Amino acid sequence: MNEFSVSDEIAAMVAERDWSQFHTPENLAKSIAIEAGELLECFQWNADADPDRVRGELADVLTYCLLLADRLGMDPNQIILDKLAVTRGKYPVDTARGRSTKYDAL
Amino acid sequence: MNEFSVSDEIAAMVAERDWSQFHTPENLAKSIAIEAGELLECFQWNADADPDRVRGELADVLTYCLLLADRLGMDPNQIILDKLAVTRGKYPVDTARGRSTKYDAL
Amino acid sequence: MNEFSVSDEIAAMVAERDWSQFHTPENLAKSIAIEAGELLECFQWNADADPDRVRGELADVLTYCLLLADRLGMDPNQIILDKLAVTRGKYPVDTARGRSTKYDAL
Amino acid sequence: MNEFSVSDEIAAMVAERDWSQFHTPENLAKSIAIEAGELLECFQWNADADPDRVRGELADVLTYCLLLADRLGMDPNQIILDKLAVTRGKYPVDTARGRSTKYDAL
Repeated sequence: MNEFSVSDEIAAMVAERDWSQFHTPENLAKSIAIEAGELLECFQWNADADPDRVRGELADVLTYCLLLADRLGMDPNQIILDKLAVTRGKYPVDTARGRSTKYDAL
Repeated sequence: MNEFSVSDEIAAMVAERDWSQFHTPENLAKSIAIEAGELLECFQWNADADPDRVRGELADVLTYCLLLADRLGMDPNQIILDKLAVTRGKYPVDTARGRSTKYDAL
Repeated sequence: MNEFSVSDEIAAMVAERDWSQFHTPENLAKSIAIEAGELLECFQWNADADPDRVRGELADVLTYCLLLADRLGMDPNQIILDKLAVTRGKYPVDTARGRSTKYDAL
Repeated sequence: MNEFSVSDEIAAMVAERDWSQFHTPENLAKSIAIEAGELLECFQWNADADPDRVRGELADVLTYCLLLADRLGMDPNQIILDKLAVTRGKYPVDTARGRSTKYDAL
C-alpha cells in the first residue's frame, strides 16, 4: 500500500476544516491522553470489550499521535524503530524473557 | 509517512522476550493510557517540551497501539481511514470550519 | 479530626515553594491525568499492586484534585455530594442494581 | 475543606446498587484514569473551561479515589499528609522555590 498516505489523508481532513490552529503540540498531547481514556473505558468493568467501539477509540488515539508526529516533524515509523532499539538494550533477552518486571528492577 | 509498516519489527521484539502472554487487550489499553500520561508529562508545566523526550514517549504510545491493533486483528492504517470517514460526516466542512466545538454542540 | 485542615496543609507546602504560579486550572487538570496514569501503572500487568506504591500515587492524584478544587473555589466534599445526587438519579436502584451498565444503556 | 468526610455517603450509594462487586482496586484505578481524561477534556482546546462541567468531572475523579482508598483500607486524609511530608523532603524550600523542575533535576 504505497499509493496513498495515511498522514496525508489526515492532513487533508484537518486542512479542509482549518483545524491546525488548534493543534499545538500541547493540545495534541492532551488529546492523546483524553482518547486513551476513552479507549480504556471500553475495558472499565471487564476484560472483554466491544470490538467496534475499541476500533473507533484506537483510531482516535492513533490519529492524534500521527498529528503530533507530523507537527513535530517526526517520522512515526522511525521513532518506533528507534525506541525498539532502546527497549532491546534495556531488556536483554536472557534476563527479560517471560517477565513483566520493569528494567530497573530486573 | 505513507503508513504504519513496523508491526513486524515490534512483534519480533516481543516474541524474543516471550512477552505476548502479558499483552491482553485490557493490559494494552492500560499501557496506552499510562504512556499517554508520560507523554503529557512532557507538557505538564508549560507548552514547550523537550523534543527527545516527546519522541520516546510518543513512540511508546504508538508501539502499544500497534500491539493492540495486532492483537485484535485490526489493520491500523485501515481503522484510521475508516474513522476519518466518520469524522468527515460528523463535522461537515461548512459548519465545523475554524471551530473546535464538539459535533454535538455544532 | 477538625483540628487541622488537609487543604491548608497542602496550601502551606505550595506557598513555601511559591508554586501556585504553576497551578493554573489547566496545568492541574493535566497533572491529575498524569498522576492517574502513574496510579494505573501499579496495575499495568496484573490486578495485584504494591500497596505502598498505590498509597503514594493515590495521594498524588488526591492532592492535585484538592489544589484544583481550591483554585476554582469549590468545596471538594460538596461537589462529591452534589454529584452523588446526580448519580442516584441517573442510576435508579431498581434498574441499576447489580449491573455495571452505563445509564444510557440501562 | 477540613478533610474528606463523605466516604460513608459514597459507600451507601454503592451498597444500594450492589456495585461493590465491580470495584476491584484495578477497576477503580482504571476508572480514576478514565475520569481524569474526561476532566482533562474540559481543557482540551483552551485553558478556560466550563466550571459546571469541571465540577462534575472533578467530583467523579474524587469519588473513585475515595472508593479506592476505602477498598484498600487507607485513610485519604492521612495518605495525603504522609505524601506531603515526602514532597517537603524531596523539594527543599531553598532549592525548589519558584521552580517547576522535577526533584531529580534540581
